[in-house]
Amino acid sequence: MKLEILDTTLRDGAQGEGISFSVDDKINIIKALDELGVAVIEAGNPSSNPKDAELFSLLPKLRLKNSRLAAFGSTRRKEVAAQDDEALKVLASAPTDITVIFGKSSSLHVENVLLTTKEENLSMIYDTVSFLRECGKKVIFDAEHYFDGYKYDPDYALKTLKAAEAAGASCIVLCDTNGGSFPDEIFDITEKTIQKLKTRIGIHTHNDAGFADANALFGVLAGAVHIQGTFTGFGERCGNANLATLIAGLQIKRKNECIPAENLSSLTDTARYIAEVANVALPKSSPYVGDGAFSHKGGMHIDGVSKLPQSYEHIDPAIVGNERRFLTSEFSGRTSILSKINGITPQLSKDSPEVMQIISELKELENQGFQFESADSSFELFVRKELKIEKHFFELEQYKIIGERPAAERASVSAIVKIKVGGISEITAAQGEGPVNALDKALRRALEVFYPSIGKVHLIDYKVRVLDPKEATAARVRVLITSTDGDRVWTTVGVSGDVIQASWMALVDSIEYKLLKETE
Amino acid sequence: MKLEILDTTLRDGAQGEGISFSVDDKINIIKALDELGVAVIEAGNPSSNPKDAELFSLLPKLRLKNSRLAAFGSTRRKEVAAQDDEALKVLASAPTDITVIFGKSSSLHVENVLLTTKEENLSMIYDTVSFLRECGKKVIFDAEHYFDGYKYDPDYALKTLKAAEAAGASCIVLCDTNGGSFPDEIFDITEKTIQKLKTRIGIHTHNDAGFADANALFGVLAGAVHIQGTFTGFGERCGNANLATLIAGLQIKRKNECIPAENLSSLTDTARYIAEVANVALPKSSPYVGDGAFSHKGGMHIDGVSKLPQSYEHIDPAIVGNERRFLTSEFSGRTSILSKINGITPQLSKDSPEVMQIISELKELENQGFQFESADSSFELFVRKELKIEKHFFELEQYKIIGERPAAERASVSAIVKIKVGGISEITAAQGEGPVNALDKALRRALEVFYPSIGKVHLIDYKVRVLDPKEATAARVRVLITSTDGDRVWTTVGVSGDVIQASWMALVDSIEYKLLKETE
Repeated sequence: MKLEILDTTLRDGAQGEGISFSVDDKINIIKALDELGVAVIEAGNPSSNPKDAELFSLLPKLRLKNSRLAAFGSTRRKEVAAQDDEALKVLASAPTDITVIFGKSSSLHVENVLLTTKEENLSMIYDTVSFLRECGKKVIFDAEHYFDGYKYDPDYALKTLKAAEAAGASCIVLCDTNGGSFPDEIFDITEKTIQKLKTRIGIHTHNDAGFADANALFGVLAGAVHIQGTFTGFGERCGNANLATLIAGLQIKRKNECIPAENLSSLTDTARYIAEVANVALPKSSPYVGDGAFSHKGGMHIDGVSKLPQSYEHIDPAIVGNERRFLTSEFSGRTSILSKINGITPQLSKDSPEVMQIISELKELENQGFQFESADSSFELFVRKELKIEKHFFELEQYKIIGERPAAERASVSAIVKIKVGGISEITAAQGEGPVNALDKALRRALEVFYPSIGKVHLIDYKVRVLDPKEATAARVRVLITSTDGDRVWTTVGVSGDVIQASWMALVDSIEYKLLKETE
Repeated sequence: MKLEILDTTLRDGAQGEGISFSVDDKINIIKALDELGVAVIEAGNPSSNPKDAELFSLLPKLRLKNSRLAAFGSTRRKEVAAQDDEALKVLASAPTDITVIFGKSSSLHVENVLLTTKEENLSMIYDTVSFLRECGKKVIFDAEHYFDGYKYDPDYALKTLKAAEAAGASCIVLCDTNGGSFPDEIFDITEKTIQKLKTRIGIHTHNDAGFADANALFGVLAGAVHIQGTFTGFGERCGNANLATLIAGLQIKRKNECIPAENLSSLTDTARYIAEVANVALPKSSPYVGDGAFSHKGGMHIDGVSKLPQSYEHIDPAIVGNERRFLTSEFSGRTSILSKINGITPQLSKDSPEVMQIISELKELENQGFQFESADSSFELFVRKELKIEKHFFELEQYKIIGERPAAERASVSAIVKIKVGGISEITAAQGEGPVNALDKALRRALEVFYPSIGKVHLIDYKVRVLDPKEATAARVRVLITSTDGDRVWTTVGVSGDVIQASWMALVDSIEYKLLKETE
């Protein structure tokens, strides 16, 4: 069965905390959704703000391959004729074939929020849909608060849908607006509703009770053929139904066609791209498309997935364009650690004494607070040291930092670093905002004399974690640093009771790793 | 109906990417879960690594009010008698009444991953459960891959459960190990399984298809009375069932008792505390407990929720200890801020210019990265400064820190602090492991000359968060410090581009707060 997907990332998704799309962002997201093959893209409300007005003026220039665009707005104002309602006139002249209209379907809300009569609300729905139909639009009717309305007053809730149907809506969408419904209720009410109508039914859900995706699924199981949601679940409060999850699940596991089959392998890239445009970190744990959706940490799991992928992978990650990752940790068994060791020295086997030694040393380091799962580069340097195949690029003779308040300038810390390369000592100093910043500058300045390529390295991420807070300021601290030279990105780790020393360890690893890769 | 909640944050949750609990972290989480009233806490596998071994050695000292502890392990090794299996011996002697044993229930996995016969696997299950029962343990049997196993070979899957039942397991838990099942399948298979067994049935789900929580719910709807999950959905790949979501939903909306009713309002605090200990940012959009779960951005929504809260709030946030936030309103939180201000000066009203000024200044500070939510003491000092009713106990003339490597001793940093009290200067120096530790010692030593009670203060918690990681080592850092004098516990905050300066601000606030409270 084919399901019609309506994406509302640009409208409901933009209600998410911390999300603010520019007009360019919106155009880019529309293009990405069109490439993926989503059936309908809700672009926004052309009369709600200047940004959306500008967006709508640009829409006619877009040449879309797969998607149709929709404008969004509400039923006419109370006691105003549809043709005199300014917002409806803007919708009628908007450059989209489809208009999505939301109206109230709960009599409680009609009387307490809209502050009008139940009859007037029915007229508002009927008039609005009729007017837009007469203007040549295809109309999707979003029945706001439908499930709560049905629980409160089923007869009235159904009447609102019948008003939209009588006026010629092509799809009626049942909305769980406050997101509090459970999937068994959604199934039950959707099933009863479908029996009373001829129009195609859609489902629009929110995640306040944690069931947005399951609620959309149970809408479909009860007969809905149109799903509204966002990438990747963005939306007000707890978010909307996550289209990445629903498209993947329904298309792979239930054979519902949501997007053209050949585009399914673009799903991960599309989801990550939209998150990037929204400037939101896509959670690693996002189903199907997250960076960690197919990553394995426990040794037994790594062993299992190597023997039988389906043991810990519900689908082949390639189907959605994602991939498997093995994380290094105290839980990792010999198999995954060995595969990383073999990346460095292929000749060692699972039972080599060196491998046993590395695993035992690794456990000890993790006990001290080291964490290598996201610091692969420090792990490689550690393995090389254990195997006595490390390369020495420089020796640290001394570092010294001096910090003081009041400070003469914004840069409140000075660092002095003395290193030795091939018998030649180099001493440099630098000032920075904070000890780590000052040390980083001084170290790189000293090394650039010998290794000019170090000039290209800079830090792009820095994390500090206090490991045993009960020790308070004498607690051990773990620092993770992510560096880049423009091409490659790598992460290193340091642990110490002294935040300066822990940062220093991670900084030194970062530089050593860069130099090591250059010699390879 | 009562549901038994088993929390596996410390075991399955620790498999989550980026999560690495210290032994102290684990003890703190156990205490928090016990306070909340979770029935069973899975502490870990006592023979898997040194950290868990240390944890188990500390468990007998814990005095829990509500929870029982469980150890976790697997069935005996193949072709080894249970009483000769080293890991089972450790489990048998572990200081927990309950042992959770996982065993394979899919014949595909038995033959391809475990590499043994179907018969031997049944014996492994039977022998393991029997042995632990004979050692006096209550045994919960986790049937790994049960749903996939049932789909592949239902007769064999049921036989594995029957083996555990015959051996005396007190609860049999159906696991959707790779997380790929849909809730309708879970319902169907759970319902069929329950008809074949006498033992209580539990449900253990993962989120790979986006349905971990819905799958747990449908297990319960089919008759399961035991739920396994984590706070707040932490776990390998896409995570486990989220206990915060399930406890809230089942207890509030389905009247299932999951935790003592009077503890439900601690749910938000517990979830945030555990995320803090895990050093994972709890997504704002987390159902029920997220910072944004009841926040409203759109003007129409703010209007709606003001007229009729249920229009965009599926429950009263206070039930779970959360609160409503308006994101765009400049008066956001005025009521709650006023109540805090009135704790200091009762005479100010909501519309006083002082209150408006404090709110505007507060927004500016929060914009810089200050967070007063958990730093009430710094908030009180800030309000006093704004109202010009602060007390001056000392002036800082200067601090200076010197850190160096190689260091002569373990204490690698020296601090010099110069303060002035009533015209008298006092200069002291101290050494410490790290700059913060050294400053803390020096500051308290200087002040003790004037205020001997400072000697009783010590720090019990210390947290560092990098606020804008893309700025790397020049990023702003927020430091939270929790102090005690034996009676009272208080938390203060500092923010700066320099971790030393941020720590210093929080240290100074901590001391000032102590002295302030003494004068009251």
